Amino acid sequence: MLKRRLECKEYFDGILAANNVILSKAITLVESTLDEDQLLAQKLIELILPHTSKSIRIGITGVPGVGKSTFIEAFGNFIIQEKNKKIAVLAVDPSSQLTKGSIMGDKTRMDLLSNNPKAFIRPSPSGKTLGGVNKTSRETILLCEAAGYEVILIETVGVGQAEIAVKSMVDFFLLLMLAGAGDELQGIKKGIIEMADLIAITKADGDNIKKARTAKVVYENALHFLSQSDNGWSPHVLTCSALQSEGIKQIWEEIEKFIGITNQNGAFNKNRNFQNLQWMHDSVKQNVEDNFYKNSNIKNVLSGIEDEVMNGNITSTQAAMKLLKIYKNEV
Amino acid sequence: MLKRRLECKEYFDGILAANNVILSKAITLVESTLDEDQLLAQKLIELILPHTSKSIRIGITGVPGVGKSTFIEAFGNFIIQEKNKKIAVLAVDPSSQLTKGSIMGDKTRMDLLSNNPKAFIRPSPSGKTLGGVNKTSRETILLCEAAGYEVILIETVGVGQAEIAVKSMVDFFLLLMLAGAGDELQGIKKGIIEMADLIAITKADGDNIKKARTAKVVYENALHFLSQSDNGWSPHVLTCSALQSEGIKQIWEEIEKFIGITNQNGAFNKNRNFQNLQWMHDSVKQNVEDNFYKNSNIKNVLSGIEDEVMNGNITSTQAAMKLLKIYKNEV
Repeated sequence: MLKRRLECKEYFDGILAANNVILSKAITLVESTLDEDQLLAQKLIELILPHTSKSIRIGITGVPGVGKSTFIEAFGNFIIQEKNKKIAVLAVDPSSQLTKGSIMGDKTRMDLLSNNPKAFIRPSPSGKTLGGVNKTSRETILLCEAAGYEVILIETVGVGQAEIAVKSMVDFFLLLMLAGAGDELQGIKKGIIEMADLIAITKADGDNIKKARTAKVVYENALHFLSQSDNGWSPHVLTCSALQSEGIKQIWEEIEKFIGITNQNGAFNKNRNFQNLQWMHDSVKQNVEDNFYKNSNIKNVLSGIEDEVMNGNITSTQAAMKLLKIYKNEV
Repeated sequence: MLKRRLECKEYFDGILAANNVILSKAITLVESTLDEDQLLAQKLIELILPHTSKSIRIGITGVPGVGKSTFIEAFGNFIIQEKNKKIAVLAVDPSSQLTKGSIMGDKTRMDLLSNNPKAFIRPSPSGKTLGGVNKTSRETILLCEAAGYEVILIETVGVGQAEIAVKSMVDFFLLLMLAGAGDELQGIKKGIIEMADLIAITKADGDNIKKARTAKVVYENALHFLSQSDNGWSPHVLTCSALQSEGIKQIWEEIEKFIGITNQNGAFNKNRNFQNLQWMHDSVKQNVEDNFYKNSNIKNVLSGIEDEVMNGNITSTQAAMKLLKIYKNEV
């Protein structure tokens, strides 16, 4: 998968020296499904761990058409210029296992940002299951943090399972909404709105300003009916225009306010520790699964049993039980 | 979880006698996370297996607002009345793990159907992960088949991971779309359109007819650009009005045509066998995971290690490695 695998120390030194080429290669290593790559990746993650966790991790979601790329372009440039922070933009696209596409394959949609040396943009990994996206995204966050990126934006498209995965790895969850489309049409579900720490109505410019203000009131009312989160934070609704760079600063200020409050009441760290717990369980599950499929006796019989299922000779349950028996006798 | 657990034979006899009360109880058993319930559920599934697989399994998806319930009401009643077949309607809602809600909590949205003795409606299981929904939905399909339901409609909401899960358990995938909203606004991704065996534009009545016809042409063109599936079937686009019972018959005829073609060229069975293969792998994963967490040595140390992670004393990776080492030495 990798054209040339580097030594662990080369990755490590390169990342700590904020070398984006090496950072990219390290992410590719983490995303690789080859055993040797994974071994090396784990070693690298262990090494960089002490240099991680110092960033603000922000999830950004919204349906296609809401203007995510345009928003991230404006928001990212604001953070770099006004706050003098380095930012990384990562994408999580659960559907890529089908389409093999990437929501950010076209980096040119973020023209300014992708040419800014203080920004690092990484498209979504392709051909992964959600579990895989989950795992590699977390490790990609750590790699970016070790490379000195202080704000990590994790972009996700769609409305559902991917957002739950992203919520489990960020500090702050920003939901972008269109004015005038109605949340039904936008396919946004109550569960997603409940996850939001802030809702921003995009494209609040020109003829759209009035609609955006109405939507703001509607969503503010909707938020009132949702149960209060236990982190001491009440989500608000803002409007913004990436085109006219309006409302961008206010969104950042909300995030700073959120960090201030949750740092003071301990919710920030509590959330991160809880996420680490989830991560531990995910690692365990991934490992016991890997151990099963890497077992040599399983490897010997697997394709034969798969053929039997494909030919309809045995049921899936029978086949699973057969495999598990072989594994149990052998481990 | 269950108020009263029945004997395996009681479930079995009740299901084969098409007793809906017992069928409901059996589904609750399958959805239960209690060990004893799961053991019994597995035994029951093994018993009913020879009586399954004879239905047509149809996945139905579309964003909220597309009129899924109204469509299923009309479609289901058509199948019962005109085709004299018993139908079961199941719901898969991946977001319920957050909201604890159910997209079909309100059965009254399907008034006629829910009062028809030839129809069985089952809301989505709540509080499950996607993996769980996946597993229990497959087993619920089998239970309904054993109870004599000849058409199984699996309703899913949202756009993304849930559809991939549903696609992996149905013979035919029907995508409902709104006219005039544009697929961007509907949050429908290319990957979902690629999965569709048929697209139906809903609410093609009154002022909406012209818009629906335009949308039909747009989606037909879109389908042209997508890669041909290898099952010999070319997906079409139809319009329908559940309100005026128009286009419902045509949708059913498309499904019959699909079954005819894929039965003849072998794609129907090939797809089912492939789905069984996926199911086998899912069972294996679920089992190795369960075995880990049920191991007594793991049980003894787990909460202590979880505390250490929550207090930030060890990283998630270190904790996972510690647990895996304990497990390895013990198994």
